[in-house]
Amino acid sequence: MSQQVAPVSLREIQRPVAVELERVAGELRRIIAADFPIIAEGNEHLLRMKGKMFRPTLLLLANRACAADDGRAVTLAAVVELIHLATLVHDDSVDHSVLRRGMPTINALFSHQVAVIMGDYLYSRAIIELVRLDDLEPLRVFARVTNEMTVGEMRQLEAHDKLAYSEVEYDQLIRAKTASLLSGACEVGALGAPVSHREALAHFGLRLGMAFQITDDLLDYTEPEAVTGKPSGLDLKEHKVTLPLIAALAAMGTVDRRLVAELMDTPDPGDELVAEVIRLVEATGGLAYARRRALELAQQADAELDILPSSPARDVLRDSITYAVERRS
Amino acid sequence: MSQQVAPVSLREIQRPVAVELERVAGELRRIIAADFPIIAEGNEHLLRMKGKMFRPTLLLLANRACAADDGRAVTLAAVVELIHLATLVHDDSVDHSVLRRGMPTINALFSHQVAVIMGDYLYSRAIIELVRLDDLEPLRVFARVTNEMTVGEMRQLEAHDKLAYSEVEYDQLIRAKTASLLSGACEVGALGAPVSHREALAHFGLRLGMAFQITDDLLDYTEPEAVTGKPSGLDLKEHKVTLPLIAALAAMGTVDRRLVAELMDTPDPGDELVAEVIRLVEATGGLAYARRRALELAQQADAELDILPSSPARDVLRDSITYAVERRS
Repeated sequence: MSQQVAPVSLREIQRPVAVELERVAGELRRIIAADFPIIAEGNEHLLRMKGKMFRPTLLLLANRACAADDGRAVTLAAVVELIHLATLVHDDSVDHSVLRRGMPTINALFSHQVAVIMGDYLYSRAIIELVRLDDLEPLRVFARVTNEMTVGEMRQLEAHDKLAYSEVEYDQLIRAKTASLLSGACEVGALGAPVSHREALAHFGLRLGMAFQITDDLLDYTEPEAVTGKPSGLDLKEHKVTLPLIAALAAMGTVDRRLVAELMDTPDPGDELVAEVIRLVEATGGLAYARRRALELAQQADAELDILPSSPARDVLRDSITYAVERRS
Repeated sequence: MSQQVAPVSLREIQRPVAVELERVAGELRRIIAADFPIIAEGNEHLLRMKGKMFRPTLLLLANRACAADDGRAVTLAAVVELIHLATLVHDDSVDHSVLRRGMPTINALFSHQVAVIMGDYLYSRAIIELVRLDDLEPLRVFARVTNEMTVGEMRQLEAHDKLAYSEVEYDQLIRAKTASLLSGACEVGALGAPVSHREALAHFGLRLGMAFQITDDLLDYTEPEAVTGKPSGLDLKEHKVTLPLIAALAAMGTVDRRLVAELMDTPDPGDELVAEVIRLVEATGGLAYARRRALELAQQADAELDILPSSPARDVLRDSITYAVERRS
């Protein structure tokens, strides 16, 4: 994988499983259906929000690339999206976020209280659906992954010395918070395959997920709000330390570090201060470092696929890596 | 069951399963173990809080009364307590409660954020443990019950006309919020038993749970803080409408209803106003009505046990009904 690749759109990756993805949306609607008013309203709102369906796409592609031909793949894909949704609802409540994908969050639209209960509702529906499939294997994977995600969320919350936050800690965080569910999606898609293939896809998903999250964190530095739907430099504004800053700090002198410290000590830093730190992170090679790291992980993800038989689905999984690291939003 | 019964202590109900209950505490500790600091601290706090273990007690007694002799009963009993704990952590966060069993809640000790994630952590650990038991049946029961509990929580949150809140709505609420998990505990204890016994125990738990919750709501009117650990009249202070008030309202004239409306319209009603409404509820027969209803449900719970073979464990299950409706805290 070279540094200069033609970007791949989400649409292109989803084309081979477009029919299944349509059915995933229907399954999701069926699984979360509720006759209680607030929950039904919350559901409608979340279904309108309609995410990228990246996790269901990976599950379906993994399933096809393994020729596992799992008749439950569409339902399992809906469940992985549902688990993702439940997590987002709680994350937004924990972070006091008011917007998600350009739409109000559940906590903003209703209240924090409703968001907490809504997340619990969605997650317990996912478990009910998995039990209904009468197979412990997907449950085993998703239960482990969900637990890892909660530990990741707790890591994110932990008070720490911002300027001493290490790349090792960052890696642990993005593995737990993001990569674990992408890995789980790929592994569950491959449940019917030989163990070696199943493991390769789990590892693929983990590397892909880490590259995906690093790219996300990079976009926060590089892309304007109009493209990402989130204000640029938001992580810095919220004092979130991600890989570009960690890498930059390692190369900074005392004066520059003092500027970062000032930002971290300012409760609601202004745009000018944020822009100054962004320039500094770029000048000190933080963006370049994070970019290299994302591409390294992308390469590792790519190598995991070698064990699978050559197929159009495997090619598309390779494209999904390009999408993950070359996307602009 | 007469109106005048010698009270039964929790200790008496727990005596026949005291050895198992000791092991439940150990299992609980094992299942929630975490090496991440905040979670480990949260766990220690929750384990120190140590509840009444009423749900594990019911599960173990149900198991014995059915002669189901389930080798996993201790672990399942730990899981039912864990699900209860996870629910309490989220409930306290949703309600902004600062005390639980005389100790600070997780949201008070840490933050709302930590409480949301901690609840998710505990619940996902419960699922992992159930998967580890390699049997879908307990999962099926607990997944359904947990989902019902979230709907119950949402019901509690729902804005409604306080003075028009009906007994039917109240029944739906206490079924979902409280009785479903007690029912689930009894049913899971009886998984190895014939279907008729399993169903009888599920129904028993449901009736018992409703009687238990009505008694809780009555204690809020009748018992001083020194006995219950919660300030007396707290529900009224928080504008929570429970059965005593619902029943009393049905018998009230316009003037009295106006006093209740005043309390409900006062953001933080003073002790005097609360005491006045408590007296009114008593004078209008609200307490007596709720008491009768609790005893009626207790009788129904009792009748469900008739199908089981006579045994010491069945006798103790009958005693647990007396405990549920005669306790003072």
